[in-house]
Amino acid sequence: MSYNAKMYGLGSKRSTIREIFEYAKKRGEEIGAENVFDFSIGNPSVPAPPEVNESIIKTVNEVPSVALHGYTSAQGDKGVRDRIAENFTKRFGAELSGDNLYMTCGAAASLTITFHALSCEGDEFIVFAPFFPEYRVFIGGTGAKLTVLPSDGNTMQPDFEALEKALNPHVKGVLINSPNNPSGAVYGEKTIERLTSLLKAKSEEYGAPIYLISDEPYRELIYDKETVVPCVMNYYADSIICYSYSKSLSMPGERVGYIAVNPKAKESKEVYAAVCGAGRELGFVCAPALFQRVAAECDGLTADLSVYKRNRDLLYNGLKDYGYTCIYPDGAFYLFVKALEEDAAAFCERAKKYELLLVNGADFGYSGWVRVAYCVQTERIEKALPLFKKLAEEYKK
Amino acid sequence: MSYNAKMYGLGSKRSTIREIFEYAKKRGEEIGAENVFDFSIGNPSVPAPPEVNESIIKTVNEVPSVALHGYTSAQGDKGVRDRIAENFTKRFGAELSGDNLYMTCGAAASLTITFHALSCEGDEFIVFAPFFPEYRVFIGGTGAKLTVLPSDGNTMQPDFEALEKALNPHVKGVLINSPNNPSGAVYGEKTIERLTSLLKAKSEEYGAPIYLISDEPYRELIYDKETVVPCVMNYYADSIICYSYSKSLSMPGERVGYIAVNPKAKESKEVYAAVCGAGRELGFVCAPALFQRVAAECDGLTADLSVYKRNRDLLYNGLKDYGYTCIYPDGAFYLFVKALEEDAAAFCERAKKYELLLVNGADFGYSGWVRVAYCVQTERIEKALPLFKKLAEEYKK
Repeated sequence: MSYNAKMYGLGSKRSTIREIFEYAKKRGEEIGAENVFDFSIGNPSVPAPPEVNESIIKTVNEVPSVALHGYTSAQGDKGVRDRIAENFTKRFGAELSGDNLYMTCGAAASLTITFHALSCEGDEFIVFAPFFPEYRVFIGGTGAKLTVLPSDGNTMQPDFEALEKALNPHVKGVLINSPNNPSGAVYGEKTIERLTSLLKAKSEEYGAPIYLISDEPYRELIYDKETVVPCVMNYYADSIICYSYSKSLSMPGERVGYIAVNPKAKESKEVYAAVCGAGRELGFVCAPALFQRVAAECDGLTADLSVYKRNRDLLYNGLKDYGYTCIYPDGAFYLFVKALEEDAAAFCERAKKYELLLVNGADFGYSGWVRVAYCVQTERIEKALPLFKKLAEEYKK
Repeated sequence: MSYNAKMYGLGSKRSTIREIFEYAKKRGEEIGAENVFDFSIGNPSVPAPPEVNESIIKTVNEVPSVALHGYTSAQGDKGVRDRIAENFTKRFGAELSGDNLYMTCGAAASLTITFHALSCEGDEFIVFAPFFPEYRVFIGGTGAKLTVLPSDGNTMQPDFEALEKALNPHVKGVLINSPNNPSGAVYGEKTIERLTSLLKAKSEEYGAPIYLISDEPYRELIYDKETVVPCVMNYYADSIICYSYSKSLSMPGERVGYIAVNPKAKESKEVYAAVCGAGRELGFVCAPALFQRVAAECDGLTADLSVYKRNRDLLYNGLKDYGYTCIYPDGAFYLFVKALEEDAAAFCERAKKYELLLVNGADFGYSGWVRVAYCVQTERIEKALPLFKKLAEEYKK
């Protein structure tokens, strides 16, 4: 064949979300964009904090061109890594040095590099549904097997019985994503404790580490004082954090994030070297140099989260009032809602009649639910609420 | 094993060039950095053209944050692609639209994505030595076989007899790099004509396209009026150009380039879709958004090439005078020099005694030669010339 059929498949099959986006555009032309409510896309709707653009301009004006726009080392600029690591330790209490950090071109790169670094023939990774569908693509690229386990339908916490049954000596890692896309659920301390003690016991039993890979692009997007996202490194030695500044700093297009390999991991140095090797083979060279510096300067800041919080509260409370079953989203900018009929695809079609564009939970490996992305202008939520109400009323008839 | 051994190998084995870099640092501390002549690294030494920083600042000030720093489509911003494609057609006379362009995170990404998009089980790619050693790593990542063929030792043009013998139905593509790293050689029109007519004949014979993959990061780095780098698309339908703005705009750290799939290729649309799929599986998401816009605004501009030209002339003429055999570098910023003894490693060691740090051609698959990277301050060349002279004299004794 004159091209790779799998890659052709991955490139030519439109994602459902992309299809909805195209539909929204077309429908907007027909009835006016203001009358179409597209809750399908997880793009930050809030500007980057002003410090981002300030840092860009200051850096461009102050740092000589060759030093600024030149290659950084493959693992990222040393000063950048040291600064982010120091801040990490200050913020989360977990020991980390610049030598444990590998700067990446965003979360997707953090994940593909990590999976390629860890994966050996016959390996298996575990994820809990609902989950970000690209995990399947990224893990598929390594040849490893992806095992999908259920979550508790009331809390969207892992189903530990299923996990205990599924663990076996081929499991190289368990991938978690808290705050979660698409459910907004956060794994609190109890969950992390239970999860890590199970992994510890099983790692000992098998005589080989089971890595806990924590995908944390939504780490800072939490809305209640009492919500804490525990740092996995404080609970489990063989842990790797995949981070991205896309959501926290509202700059997903600029592609910058990192992989942090827990220095306490049994083979921390070897895993870090494998991360460097995987980044090299995949063709990453280095993370964008200017934005590495911006990330270091703005690390720990966030875009204005009050908009997302307002949206969340409006949407969650509104939908609860109308009788919908929703997962209370402690974080991220998604509301996971139980479809009002068994077939979530049919429910999405019914919602479309009210110009409400939702994503079927089946795309996230979870049947019977839909995702509502509330990273939109608040006015869109306010105008959509009566439509959600009418949709619910239709089912009561 | 608790990590991937191949990735560990790729990440922990220091490249020779990196070793030389570390040696230079250490040696500089001993005798003063001004007395060490490090000609090992291919980093642009000339600032980006002023338009780069101007474009950054203008874009940041004018484009709203969410639009500027947000995701672009996976293949790149449509406006950016259209503009670059239009300029491409204007500059090179080859038809190209934005729909044939896929923006990447630089040349390495252009190459890994292209190889993953094309490569099927049992495939083989051909490259001519001397060649950029990361090609082996990038092609290795797809599982395809890399076949290295010789170049003519006087001109560094492909050895066509060897190519004719090597071509077989498993060859998915031939990879060329003109201007070449490490030799500086340019493939002129005659070479491209001969190469493409051979590939055309063989493609027809096998009933399947043999792709011509042209890696062109040095395309604009040419120094004589009469030097022309022919655009492969004007000679061969099944061609793919892998480009990067790293060298032309002196911004290798910012990671932006593109893949251009010839619209005349028999399966152009399918190959383009496979490129999109490979970019997705490897975790690229999109090229850095701000720098996509900067690239579009600065496309066709270059850093001040007069420095490289001055360096080239000084170094080439000087070394010729002292009796060295050199390939005249029509482009890029490397001079390929025949070692003064059979063993180029021993020659590099002898050069070290004069504080001249050169790279063994064996690293580029070519024995008996060394690479001198002249992307340095001109003053470094002026001071190094007497040392090259002494080194040559030592061999005359």
